[in-house]
Amino acid sequence: MISTAGIIIIGDEILSGRTKDTNINWIASELNNVGIRLIEARIIADDMDTIIKTIQTFSKNFTYVFSCGGIGPTHDDITTEAVAKAFNQKLEKNSEAMRRLKVHYEGTNIEFNEARQKMAIIPTNSTLIDNPVSAAPGYKIENLFVFAGVPKIMQGMFHTILNELTGGKKLLSKTVSSNIGEGLIAKNLEKIENDFVGVKIGSYPYFKPGNFGTSIVLRSENTTQLNKASEAVLSAVIKLGGKGKIFEEGQVDERNL
Amino acid sequence: MISTAGIIIIGDEILSGRTKDTNINWIASELNNVGIRLIEARIIADDMDTIIKTIQTFSKNFTYVFSCGGIGPTHDDITTEAVAKAFNQKLEKNSEAMRRLKVHYEGTNIEFNEARQKMAIIPTNSTLIDNPVSAAPGYKIENLFVFAGVPKIMQGMFHTILNELTGGKKLLSKTVSSNIGEGLIAKNLEKIENDFVGVKIGSYPYFKPGNFGTSIVLRSENTTQLNKASEAVLSAVIKLGGKGKIFEEGQVDERNL
Repeated sequence: MISTAGIIIIGDEILSGRTKDTNINWIASELNNVGIRLIEARIIADDMDTIIKTIQTFSKNFTYVFSCGGIGPTHDDITTEAVAKAFNQKLEKNSEAMRRLKVHYEGTNIEFNEARQKMAIIPTNSTLIDNPVSAAPGYKIENLFVFAGVPKIMQGMFHTILNELTGGKKLLSKTVSSNIGEGLIAKNLEKIENDFVGVKIGSYPYFKPGNFGTSIVLRSENTTQLNKASEAVLSAVIKLGGKGKIFEEGQVDERNL
Repeated sequence: MISTAGIIIIGDEILSGRTKDTNINWIASELNNVGIRLIEARIIADDMDTIIKTIQTFSKNFTYVFSCGGIGPTHDDITTEAVAKAFNQKLEKNSEAMRRLKVHYEGTNIEFNEARQKMAIIPTNSTLIDNPVSAAPGYKIENLFVFAGVPKIMQGMFHTILNELTGGKKLLSKTVSSNIGEGLIAKNLEKIENDFVGVKIGSYPYFKPGNFGTSIVLRSENTTQLNKASEAVLSAVIKLGGKGKIFEEGQVDERNL
């Protein structure tokens, strides 16, 4: 069985265009590396009903759900309250989270005040997720991992829970870079995808000054099928009068650079 | 009445982590500039049912919907078929789109073949959106604008339809940058947001080597309220023993740089 995932990014600052989200792409790559399929990502506002409904929908539909943002000490941090409501749990001051935060603030000139203590309040039946960057923990409840929104903290939290995730086989990929138009090879790609079971083919045109072509990305769990299909794509490129080259994963850059 | 918007990014290559989406942030900023509120953005797979349902949900909930991706000539470009199904329309070969594509390919060594002609097939009751970069047009149907996924092309298309959008007042913003922790000023921010009607306050901690603090972003349609609330935040920062400065929009960079 393939494990699936959904990502929920919570924050008005992303939707206003002020902050560029980088968490989706980062988590997407990490999940891909361990063979978990990211099925959908949503960026939603700091709105209680929306957060609750999105969590419930994703929790039902996917193996794992990751949320980023809204667990800080201020009034606009409403994720934890929404999570509790989504899973019909109460909120409680978690003693271990309190202990960690106390230790963190001890010996600093920062007061461990009521607002900061809010970061130790999490839904009942949650387990803490370590925060290797600052002290305030994330938490897991059912199949939802609740992370901070700050990328460095989120990344630290993600890596502490990575070994809890059960992935499938990693989806391998190869890219055939070619100097022919997407429209010329469209029919061939459809046929090759049908011929090689388990191989998915996407095509991505690129344009650069004085230069255009198509990057054809093949993905499969099966190395043999992937290699054969890549060769078939390259043959098709050449038969159509073009030039092409097969690249291993990570060798070529994104389109549109 | 405030106009609202939703963005739908269609493409497996984003969900696999291979390609970083830049379209959400770009459109978000453009919408913010004309006073349209982006309420939600979703990144979804090249999956017929998901595309149809997402379009229907967004079309019902928001004033404007923008989709990016999946309108090229290859087999994995299924957005147009999904749009037709979502709005109960048939697909037809659009004669003006055909004309533009013919002109575009005339005098080149690129054949205007069946796959490329697919880009002229759009749902009935659509109107074309000009493509100032390459020839294949986007289209509008009901409140949905269907754009290409390639950022340069999407941006060109967006600017050709920008004057069709009816925005509200632009949401103005100011940022109070401070050297105090988010948790110290949390209570004050909640009070200030309540005191100044129409002002929304978000707080964003930043961490740099040897340095931390909080950027407090205030947003409002009303300049007077925005100025007063910003002064109130700055006063609170100073009262709490910190230093702060008010920045106009565009003067400060994102958090976590």
